[in-house]
Order: sequence, then structure tokens, then C-alpha cells
Amino acid sequence: MSAQPVRDEAAGDDGAAGDEAVRAALRTGLPAAAVLTDPDVTAAYAGDMAGFCPSGTPAAVVLPQTVEQVQHVMRTATALRVPVVPQGARTGLSGGANAGDGAIVLSFVKMDRILEVDPVNRIAVVEPGVVNAALSRAVAARGLFYPPDPSSWETCTIGGNIGTGSGGLCCVKYGVTAEYVLGLDVVLADGRLLTTGRRTAKGVAGYDLTRLFVGSEGSLGAVVGATLALKPAPAPQLALAAEFPSAAAACDAICRIMAGGHVPSLLELMDRTTVRAVNALTKMGLPDTTEALLLAAFDTPDPASDLAALGALCTAAGATEVVPAADGPESELLLAGRRAALPALEAMTGTTMIDDVCVPRSRLGDFLDGVAAIADTYALTIGTCVHAGDGNTHPNVCFDPRDPDETARARESFDAIMALGLELGGTITGEHGVGLLKKEWLAKELGPVGLELQRDIKRVFDPLDLMNPGKLF
Amino acid sequence: MSAQPVRDEAAGDDGAAGDEAVRAALRTGLPAAAVLTDPDVTAAYAGDMAGFCPSGTPAAVVLPQTVEQVQHVMRTATALRVPVVPQGARTGLSGGANAGDGAIVLSFVKMDRILEVDPVNRIAVVEPGVVNAALSRAVAARGLFYPPDPSSWETCTIGGNIGTGSGGLCCVKYGVTAEYVLGLDVVLADGRLLTTGRRTAKGVAGYDLTRLFVGSEGSLGAVVGATLALKPAPAPQLALAAEFPSAAAACDAICRIMAGGHVPSLLELMDRTTVRAVNALTKMGLPDTTEALLLAAFDTPDPASDLAALGALCTAAGATEVVPAADGPESELLLAGRRAALPALEAMTGTTMIDDVCVPRSRLGDFLDGVAAIADTYALTIGTCVHAGDGNTHPNVCFDPRDPDETARARESFDAIMALGLELGGTITGEHGVGLLKKEWLAKELGPVGLELQRDIKRVFDPLDLMNPGKLF
Repeated sequence: MSAQPVRDEAAGDDGAAGDEAVRAALRTGLPAAAVLTDPDVTAAYAGDMAGFCPSGTPAAVVLPQTVEQVQHVMRTATALRVPVVPQGARTGLSGGANAGDGAIVLSFVKMDRILEVDPVNRIAVVEPGVVNAALSRAVAARGLFYPPDPSSWETCTIGGNIGTGSGGLCCVKYGVTAEYVLGLDVVLADGRLLTTGRRTAKGVAGYDLTRLFVGSEGSLGAVVGATLALKPAPAPQLALAAEFPSAAAACDAICRIMAGGHVPSLLELMDRTTVRAVNALTKMGLPDTTEALLLAAFDTPDPASDLAALGALCTAAGATEVVPAADGPESELLLAGRRAALPALEAMTGTTMIDDVCVPRSRLGDFLDGVAAIADTYALTIGTCVHAGDGNTHPNVCFDPRDPDETARARESFDAIMALGLELGGTITGEHGVGLLKKEWLAKELGPVGLELQRDIKRVFDPLDLMNPGKLF
Repeated sequence: MSAQPVRDEAAGDDGAAGDEAVRAALRTGLPAAAVLTDPDVTAAYAGDMAGFCPSGTPAAVVLPQTVEQVQHVMRTATALRVPVVPQGARTGLSGGANAGDGAIVLSFVKMDRILEVDPVNRIAVVEPGVVNAALSRAVAARGLFYPPDPSSWETCTIGGNIGTGSGGLCCVKYGVTAEYVLGLDVVLADGRLLTTGRRTAKGVAGYDLTRLFVGSEGSLGAVVGATLALKPAPAPQLALAAEFPSAAAACDAICRIMAGGHVPSLLELMDRTTVRAVNALTKMGLPDTTEALLLAAFDTPDPASDLAALGALCTAAGATEVVPAADGPESELLLAGRRAALPALEAMTGTTMIDDVCVPRSRLGDFLDGVAAIADTYALTIGTCVHAGDGNTHPNVCFDPRDPDETARARESFDAIMALGLELGGTITGEHGVGLLKKEWLAKELGPVGLELQRDIKRVFDPLDLMNPGKLF
């Protein structure tokens, strides 16, 4: 893990301007209220929710409200050679939105308009600062559905979701953010406006630059508008919980469910540590013999019948109890435990470091065994939640940040978990991104050829390395 | 439309080697049978199915069977500065697989193994020369489904589908090739092997190079392996046909169907000209008053009920007749007319030039009006089939290639159709690609900023411009 480059405050010989010069130049093309420089205020914008990721003191936080204002920011940054850190709601978990000393934070929270919702073409056109939940509700009112639902959906922004390539609980059936981005407006480092993609359902005109921006963590340009695909609103989902005497039995059930052709709208696994933490926090009353809990849901025309078939596979795999919900409220009750998982684990030891390794579904059992061994090795509590249908695991390493030795072990275990993920044919990040947290691991996953090409692509868009520098690579 | 660059046969001062030198160098690392040089044989590999696209005399056609052999070809090409044209089954419709004089044709038809079909992880791992139908059947035997189904599916290859970003009839529900490519093995111009993407359901580790290759028409590297996502096999589909007294009424029905939240597995429109041509060829017995025919299908748990709801929307939009199929064979009968559309149109005047413009669904009525006006202006017969759920239109310009004046008018009308598509907020190509046929139009669609970035990206992967040069840009 490396710190971000620290810029020389006094207009150094690299051509970078001092903070005051940057602020003055920004103000020439922005309303006064759009440029924040009070250190007590800007400090709040310095970083996202990732632990262990350094951040500095930005020169300014800019809150643009128009594309032209963003272009002014980027032209200023290029003229003065100042790094720019695009930012949504700072709910990221990898330090991708952290700002170094002297950087311009480009916050999109005030570009939050939904410009268009079109039921015939099933698209929405939005500004990047729209909150995920606001968009979801607006399109639901028109009988439509914007599926990507990261846990932070009540606060995170669409621009942040695009930057990170966010997922969520619904991905097992509906896929991730990338699959819903049809076209983008992007302000490049030099201030030029690039329009990518399309408003149509299909299109193969040239290289797919739209997709290149999704998950690029603000390192290629600043997304200032997005055309998103929507789906028709599905039927309400009905859920089921299944208790297993071992993680292996639960993973066997997952394999049976997926090989059996089922398409649940949710398929989540909680390991023993998580189940016990949730039990302790919420008094759910799960038996102590439950070593793994599987939650499934369907939003099909006949969810009860689909759940019955899925429940039978759980029983065949050794489930000790299968509890289907009778209706929507009962479903919500079953899923409440999953939603409480992270706070429950945090309540145990002080804080957690959440990992985000995705493995082939068939290797989930091996992965959970490996994580248990890592917890033993480092004498730590690690509770794992899994988006089981995707193989996307979130091992939560619990530790007391006041204990330096435990903190050091937590960081080592975090690395061990990523190594395990790669060994099992997985990826170091399913949906949280690379940011600062995993940049050394990205190099391992990509290998030298892939890494070199990715760096060269960054250079095409941002030759001066001003867009969120020091992230990803 | 510009001709491909013609290479100087006699080792010109651009450093390119003569054909004999190229052949000799290729043979040093390939089995004798893998290098074809007989001009009568290589002529068959010179081009794809596009009209109006020039092709030349390749120096050699290479049929590799291993990744190492492909690497040898690319190293040879780089050493001797010879262009390489990757090729599948040459069913493309834009000249993307056409070879210029002196090029090496890199045909993947002998790398056609299905290496893995994995029902738990719902993936297949294949070589690029696998025929689409062979893969579809192999996975169907395991209860799985590879959706992309271009019309040429019985002969076209997965590598070609990836190069073009192919679609098909099922896209309205299942999307295009791009959505099924998880990871790729690519041999770069200099012979290095690049691995992109993942085997997992999710992943956001770095820029999405996988997606960059899909639709890149062999211009960035040679795809030598692909990991593809699969779906569970759907239920058999049940179809319906609806006759309309005007194209406008049919387009109104399409808008009602999509705004109504329906998700058909097929939604196809044939205009009056196409209906009459099909009637003439197949004796379908459609009434002469039918100005547009809409075909729809569902593969849902209760397709008859879904079809009834869709049929009611057709009636409300003015359909004169709605004919739901009672079973699978009746469905096939209804869909047979759509499958006969292209041969029926070709039978009318000698040949057709098929366009591939995609517009927002809500603009389909305006588009069909515009195409009718273009047909009048240029005194031509143009029959249009539409993947109506996607807004992806295929106007077939009918002309007699022996008539120079009609041929010239056909080409002008083709350009007029693309201009109309862009004017309506569409794209010049929904699923056929750019190749040689549409490169001037690609520049118009992308605009100067997008075009410059696309060219710069090409340069990152292929600095010597050896990979399918002269295509796209």
C-alpha cells in the first residue's frame, strides 16, 4: 500500500501551482459558493470510507452544477498541473475518492438532477450526483427498475457507482452497474467533452469507451452525465432462509441451486461468525448449531413454487431447517439479518476491514475453508458474508484499531485473503474497486502485459496524470 | 468508402517484405498444412459477405491450431511489417474480414474446440473458431443456454461474433454477445499473450479490456480463447403474429408493449415490402392489406397468458388480426416468414444491400416513414425487417447489380438511411459492425474527440498498425 504523491506546496519545479493560485484560478469560472477552501470543511471531503488509506489536505473542494463549470475545473487543473479527484458520496471502500495534498476535489453532489425517464426506451438520463435510491424511487414510480443496489444505496451516487462498477444484492439475477450504462458524457483532463455510447438498446460503433469508464475510478475523466438502461419493475420478491450444519453443506446447496438452473433474485450466505454476531445484536434466535445461513428470494410469477424447489435442494444438501416466508413482510424479516451483518460484526471488536474477493461459485467452499484457516493463523475473528449467487465474498476482518499488533495482523490477513482468492481462480475485487487499498494486488492480478496496457490507456486519456493520480496502479 | 492500402509487393521502402519472404517466415513455425498460398485457395478467404467492399490478394492464409502458432504468426508479421487479418467464418456484412494485397489472413476455423462447459459457474471456455450453433447445442445438452443468435449462427464463429459484437433475434430479452464475454486470451500484434477479465460472475479489477476487444473487429489483437457466460436453458417459446394496417400502428403497438413492461423473448417487425416479398416466395397467404407484421414470443412460465396480454395491446393499437400459436410447431410456422425475409427480398431484384441502423424504439415509426421516403427519392425497393424490441432495423436495399445507375442509387440510399438513423438519435450499426463499409460514418457518429481517442487506443495495442489495418477508422 503506497501513499499518494504529495505535491510541493510552493509551486515546485514540476510546474504545480500553490494552493492559493489554484483557488484563485478556480474562482474565475465558478460561483463563489462552489469553491470550498475552509480546511475544516475540505477535511470532510478528503477521503472515503476505506480504512488504511492515506489522504491529505486538498487545495479546494469544488461543487459544480454545470458541465461548463466542470470543464473550467479541468482546464484550470491542466493549466496549473494540479491533480483532480472526482467524488460522489464518499461511501467507497477502497480509498478511490481519497485526495492528496493540494488536489482539487471535484464533488458531484450538486449535479443531482434526473433529466429524463423514458418508459418506451427504458432509459434514464441523469447527472452523476443523483443518489442511487432517488433514481430507484423515481423510476419505480414509472413502473421501471434500476437494479444495481449497493448497500450504501440510500446515500451513494450514480457517478460513484459508475466509477467503482458497483454491485449489490440483486446482481445474481440482474447484474452490476456496468450492464446498465449505455452512454456517458465525460469531461477529459484537458477540458474537452467526450460523448460515448448510445441511447439505443444495441450498438457496435467503434470501441466500447463507455465500458472503459465504468470501474475506472475517475482516473480517465470526469463523468458528467449518464444514459442508463432500465428494466420493467419485477414482482415483489419472496424469501427463504435455510440453516446448515456446516459451510460446506451450504456451499453444496449453492452449487445444486445454480447447476439446477434456478435464477433467484437474491442468494446470500452468512458464515457462522456472522450468524452469531447477528444473533447477538438482533436476538434473531437462530440455534447455535447453525454453521451457515443461506437466504434466497425469487421475484418470479410463482415465487412460492420456485422457493419450494430451491428449499428441496437445500434439504438434499443437508439443511437442518428451511423456512420459507409466507409474504412480503416475513421476507423482509428474514432478510433483516443479512442487512444487520456489518454493524453486528463491527459491534464485536470495534471495527472491521471489509474485503471483496470474488471466486467461481464452485470454489466457495474452498474459499470459506481458507478464510477460516487464515483467521486461525492470525488469531483473528473474520466473519464472511457472501453474495453467493455471484461467488462475491465479503470477509470482514474484525480488529481493535487501538491494538497495534492486532491491527498489523488484520492487514496481513487481508492480504492473505486476496492471495487465496487469486489462487482459487478469483479476482481481488468483485464490486468495491481497487482505489489505494488494492493497487499492489491489481498488478498481481493483471500481470505485466495487462498492467502495461492499462497504464498506456490511462495515458491516452490523461497524459499529464492529473485524473485521480495514484489510484489503481 | 476507401480502398485498403495496397502494399508494395517488392519489399518496398516501408520495410514490408515480399509475399515469398512472408510465406517462408511463416513456415518456420507452422506445420506445412497450416500455411495456404495457392491463389485459387486463398482467394476464397479474401473477403466476407459484404458488398461494395474491396479486397485484395493475401500473401498467405494461415490456419493455426495452437496459441503458440498464433504467436508465431504475429511475431512474423511484426518482424516483417505485414498486416494481419483475423478471420472467422467470413459471414460478416461490413467487410471487416476483408484482406488487402499481401496481408496474412489468420483464420481461426481450425481452433474450434469447446474446452469446458461448467454448469455451476455457468461458463464455457472455448477456442475462437467454435461455430455458434455447435456451442449452443453443446451447452443445451447440459441444460444451459448461450443466447447470442445471429442469423448466420449455423456457420459463424464465436471469435467472429466477438470481433463484431454480434446480436440476433433473442437480444430483446437476452442482450448481445458483449454481455456474455467474461474474459479473453488475446495474442497482441507483437506476439505477447494478454489475458483479460475473469471466470467469476463479477469483477472490477482495472479497466475493462475484455469489453474493449468485443466489437473491435480484430484491430487490437487476435482473440485465441474466450470465457463465456451462460444462462440456464429457458422454457420453449410460444409465438404470436399480428397484422397491422400501417407501419405506424405496428410501431404504436411496439411502444405500448415496451412501456407496458413486457419482456418478450422475440419481437420482430416486417414492413409491407418484406411481407409481400415473403408472401410471394413462401405462399404464406397474408392478406394484401397487411402493411406491417409483428411477431412476438415469450419463453416465460405461462407464455399463452403473456401473449394474450401482448395481443390485446396490438389490438388496441389497431391490429386487424392477432394470431397466437397453440404450440411449438405453430410458433415455428409463424416465425418461418421472418427467417425467409432476406432470401425473399433478394429474389425480387437480384441482390440486396443490408443496412443495420439502430434507433430508439420510440422513433421506429419516424424511421420507417423516412426509409419509405428514401425509397421514393431514389426510386428503389427497400424492405425493412426490424428487431423491434431493440429498435435495430435492417433496411434491405434491393437492386440489380448489373444496372450501374440503380447500383449507384442503392449506395446513395444506403448513406441516406444512416444519416436518418443518426438524425433520430440512433447509431449507424446495431450489430453488424463498421468494417470497411461504414468507416466514414463511424467518424460522423463518434465526432472528432471520440475518434481521436479510439485511434489512440488502437495505437496502444498495435503501434505498427498491423492488426486488420484500414478497418473501423
